Amino acid sequence: IDEGDAEEVRRIVAELKPADIADLIEQLDEEDARKFVAIEGTELPFEVLPELEDGSRDIVVDALSTEQLAEAVSELDTDEAAFVLEDLDEKERAEVLAEMPIADRLALKAALDYDEDTAGRIMQRDVFAAPGYWNVGQILDRLRSVERLPDRFYDVYVVDPSYRIIGSVPLSKFIKAKRDTVIQDLCTPDPIVIDANMDQEEVAYLFEKYNLISAPVVDESKRLVGMITVDDIVEVVREEADEDMLALAGIAEDNSINAPVIKVARSRFVWLLVNLGTAILASFVIGLFDATIEQMVALAILMPIVASMGGNAGTQSMTVAVRNLSTRTLTTATALRAVYKETAVSIINGVAFAILMGAATAVWYGLLAGQPRSEAVALGGVLAASMIINMLCAGLAGILIPLGLSRIGQDPAVSSAVFVTTVTDVVGFFVFLGLAAVFLVG
Amino acid sequence: IDEGDAEEVRRIVAELKPADIADLIEQLDEEDARKFVAIEGTELPFEVLPELEDGSRDIVVDALSTEQLAEAVSELDTDEAAFVLEDLDEKERAEVLAEMPIADRLALKAALDYDEDTAGRIMQRDVFAAPGYWNVGQILDRLRSVERLPDRFYDVYVVDPSYRIIGSVPLSKFIKAKRDTVIQDLCTPDPIVIDANMDQEEVAYLFEKYNLISAPVVDESKRLVGMITVDDIVEVVREEADEDMLALAGIAEDNSINAPVIKVARSRFVWLLVNLGTAILASFVIGLFDATIEQMVALAILMPIVASMGGNAGTQSMTVAVRNLSTRTLTTATALRAVYKETAVSIINGVAFAILMGAATAVWYGLLAGQPRSEAVALGGVLAASMIINMLCAGLAGILIPLGLSRIGQDPAVSSAVFVTTVTDVVGFFVFLGLAAVFLVG
Repeated sequence: IDEGDAEEVRRIVAELKPADIADLIEQLDEEDARKFVAIEGTELPFEVLPELEDGSRDIVVDALSTEQLAEAVSELDTDEAAFVLEDLDEKERAEVLAEMPIADRLALKAALDYDEDTAGRIMQRDVFAAPGYWNVGQILDRLRSVERLPDRFYDVYVVDPSYRIIGSVPLSKFIKAKRDTVIQDLCTPDPIVIDANMDQEEVAYLFEKYNLISAPVVDESKRLVGMITVDDIVEVVREEADEDMLALAGIAEDNSINAPVIKVARSRFVWLLVNLGTAILASFVIGLFDATIEQMVALAILMPIVASMGGNAGTQSMTVAVRNLSTRTLTTATALRAVYKETAVSIINGVAFAILMGAATAVWYGLLAGQPRSEAVALGGVLAASMIINMLCAGLAGILIPLGLSRIGQDPAVSSAVFVTTVTDVVGFFVFLGLAAVFLVG
Repeated sequence: IDEGDAEEVRRIVAELKPADIADLIEQLDEEDARKFVAIEGTELPFEVLPELEDGSRDIVVDALSTEQLAEAVSELDTDEAAFVLEDLDEKERAEVLAEMPIADRLALKAALDYDEDTAGRIMQRDVFAAPGYWNVGQILDRLRSVERLPDRFYDVYVVDPSYRIIGSVPLSKFIKAKRDTVIQDLCTPDPIVIDANMDQEEVAYLFEKYNLISAPVVDESKRLVGMITVDDIVEVVREEADEDMLALAGIAEDNSINAPVIKVARSRFVWLLVNLGTAILASFVIGLFDATIEQMVALAILMPIVASMGGNAGTQSMTVAVRNLSTRTLTTATALRAVYKETAVSIINGVAFAILMGAATAVWYGLLAGQPRSEAVALGGVLAASMIINMLCAGLAGILIPLGLSRIGQDPAVSSAVFVTTVTDVVGFFVFLGLAAVFLVG
C-alpha cells in the first residue's frame, strides 16, 4: 500500500481509530513510517501521538514540522502532551512550546516542571470541582455551561473555599441524586488524595488497592491542581511490571522493536559485562581446584549440574521475592515468614534432587562406566551433599538479597539476579570441588 | 493486639477501609488470621474477601461458617462473588449457593458457567441500558427511580429493542447534555463490545489500547449481558504480567506468602526437574570431550564462561521477545525485523566480548601462567570464536523459540527459558570443547 496510492491510504486511515493507526505505524519500518506521515500530513489525528511506542514516536515526531507538532500538542490533554514532549531535546521542545498558544504553553510548562514518573506528570490539569454548599441542580447547570472541562471525568470533586478537597462524588451517584440535594451530603468523606510529587508506582498502588477510577491531585499546600484517571494507571501498571521483568534480565532501557540496534546492543552490554565478572569469579573458583580436576575429569563433567540447579532454584525464589516486594505483600512483618518458607522449600527440593542425582551418579559410574563401586558411591555422595548445600544457599540468597537491596533503598529487580547467580555459581563450584578434593582425590 | 483485647481490635478495624483490612490480614500468620476472623465475626465487612490474596482468602473463607459466607457473597457484585467462590471445591460451593437468595444464586451460577479467565467471569451482571429513542430527561428520571443499579458505572449503554448495543455515552458527556436531547444523538457509534467468552487477556488488551473505562459485554446472539469496568482490568494486567514473569522463572502456581510450603515446593519441583534434564544433557556434551579436558584442564576452567555469557544473552533477547509478544508489538509483520535486529545485536556484543575475553585469556595464560605463547594465543582464539558463535545462537534462540512457541499456540513465557538455556549450554560447551579438541589438543 505504502508505495504509491496516497488517496487509497488516506481513505483507509480515515476509518480507523487513533489506537489502530498507531498500531499500523508501529508495524511499518522506519522508511515506510516516514512516507506514511508525509502522505497523511495534517490529516493524521493528533491522538495518535501518545498511543505510539517510544521508538515509533521518535520517527513520527521527527517527520512532522515544528508547527504541525505544536498544533497537535496543544490539542492534547496536558498529561499526554507532556508525555509526547518529554523525549524531545531541550531545543526542539522550546521551539514547539514557542509555537503554542500561551495558555496551553503555561499549562504544559507547569506539567513538565514535575519530575518524570511522578503524579504531576501523569495528571490532567483540567478538573471540575464544586464548593460543598452547592446543590446537585446548581452543579448540573454549571456543568452544562462551563467550557473548559476534561474530555472525560468520573467524579465530582468537592472543595472548600481555599480549594482544598473535602470529598468526592462518583458521577453514577451524583446522577441519581435529586436536584435539591446539597453536594456535601453525597460526599464520600476522606477520599484518597494524591500528592503531585508522589511516584507513579505509589499512585498505581493506591489505585489498585482502593479500586479507584479517578483521584484528585493536590500540591504541597493541599490545594487541588489536577486529577489522575485510571486509564493512565493501566499503562503505569503495565510499564512497572515490564520494568521489573526486563530488569531481572538486565535490560534497563527502551528495547522496543523500533529502537536502534546500536542503542539496544549498548543497553545490554553493561549487564553482560557485569555477568562476565561473575563468570570469571566462578572460573577462578574452579581454577583453585585444577589439580583435583586433572585427577578426576568426571568432576568437570558433573560440576555444571550443581551450579545450574542452584541457579534455577535461586532464580525461582528471587522472582517470587521481587514480585512480592513490588506488590507489597513482602514487608517487614512477613519477611521472617518468607525466609522460613524459602528455607523449608529449598531443603525439601534440595534433598529430593540430591537423592535423585546422587543415586543416578553412583549407578552410572559404578555399573555403566565400570569405576570401582566405593569410588562411585563416594562421588554420588559428594554430588548429593553439594546439591543440598547449594540449593539451600540459593533459596536463602533468592530471598535475602532482594530483601536487603530493598532495605537499603535499591530497586531489587535491577541487581538481584547478578548477586544471586554469583552466590549459586561460586558456592556450587566451591562446595562440589572442595568436597571432592577432600573426600575423593586427597 | 491479636492476643487478647477483642474490643480494641474491633474498634481499630471499624475505622479501616476494606482494602486496608485485607492488607492487615495478609500480614498475619495463619493462626492469628483465624483468631482475627473469630473476633470480628459478622462485623468483618464482606468487601474484604475479594481484596485478599488466594492464600489468605482460603484461610478466611475456611474460618467463616457457610451461612456467613453465603451472606457475604450475596452482598458482593457478581464478578467479585464468582471470584471468591471459584476456588472452593464443588461441595462447599454448592452449600454456599444453597444458602443464598434465589436471584443472587441464579446470577452467580450463570457467572460461574463461564470459563475462568474469560470476560463472562470478570463482568458485572447489573448494567444500565436505555433505548435509543429516549431522551436525557427520561433517562435521568429512570436512573433516580431504578433500584438494582451497579454501585458505580461510567457509561450509559444505548440498545435497540432486542437489547443489542447501538452505542454508548460516557456519563461526563451525558451529564452535560440538555434534558430534551435524544440519547441516540449523543452516542459514540461503533463502541468496543466484548464477547462474554473472550479471554481476559484479550479484554485487557482492548481496554489498554482504546483507554476504556467500561465496556458492554454481549452473548453469542450479541445481546447485552453485563459490563466490565477498568478496575477489574488493572488487576488482570497485573496478574498477566506477573504470570509471564513467574512463568519465565518456572513458577506456575500460587506462590504467595501464605501458600503452604509443600504446595510451593511441588510447584517448583517440576521446573527444576526439567532443568535437571538440560543440565544432564550439557554434562553429556562435556563428557564427549573428557579426553580433551584431561589433556588441558584450562578448558574446564574456562568453559562455564562461554555457557554463562550465552545464557545471559539468550535470556535478554528472550525476555524482550516474550514481553513484545504479550503486548503484541511482536507480530507476523515485525517478526522478520525483530530477528534481524537480534542477530545484529548478538553479533555486536558477541564480537565485543570475544575480543575482550580472547585477549584477556591469551595474556593471562601467555604472560602470567607462563604457558607457551602460541598455545596461549590459540586458546584465546578458540574462546573468542566460541563466544561469538554461542552469543549469536543465544540471540537467535532467544527470539526464534518464543516466536515458534507462540506460532504453534503455546504460551512462550512458560517454556521458552528451558529451551533457550538448553541451546546456550549445549552449543556453548560443544563449540568451545570441540574447537579446542581440533585446534589445541588434537
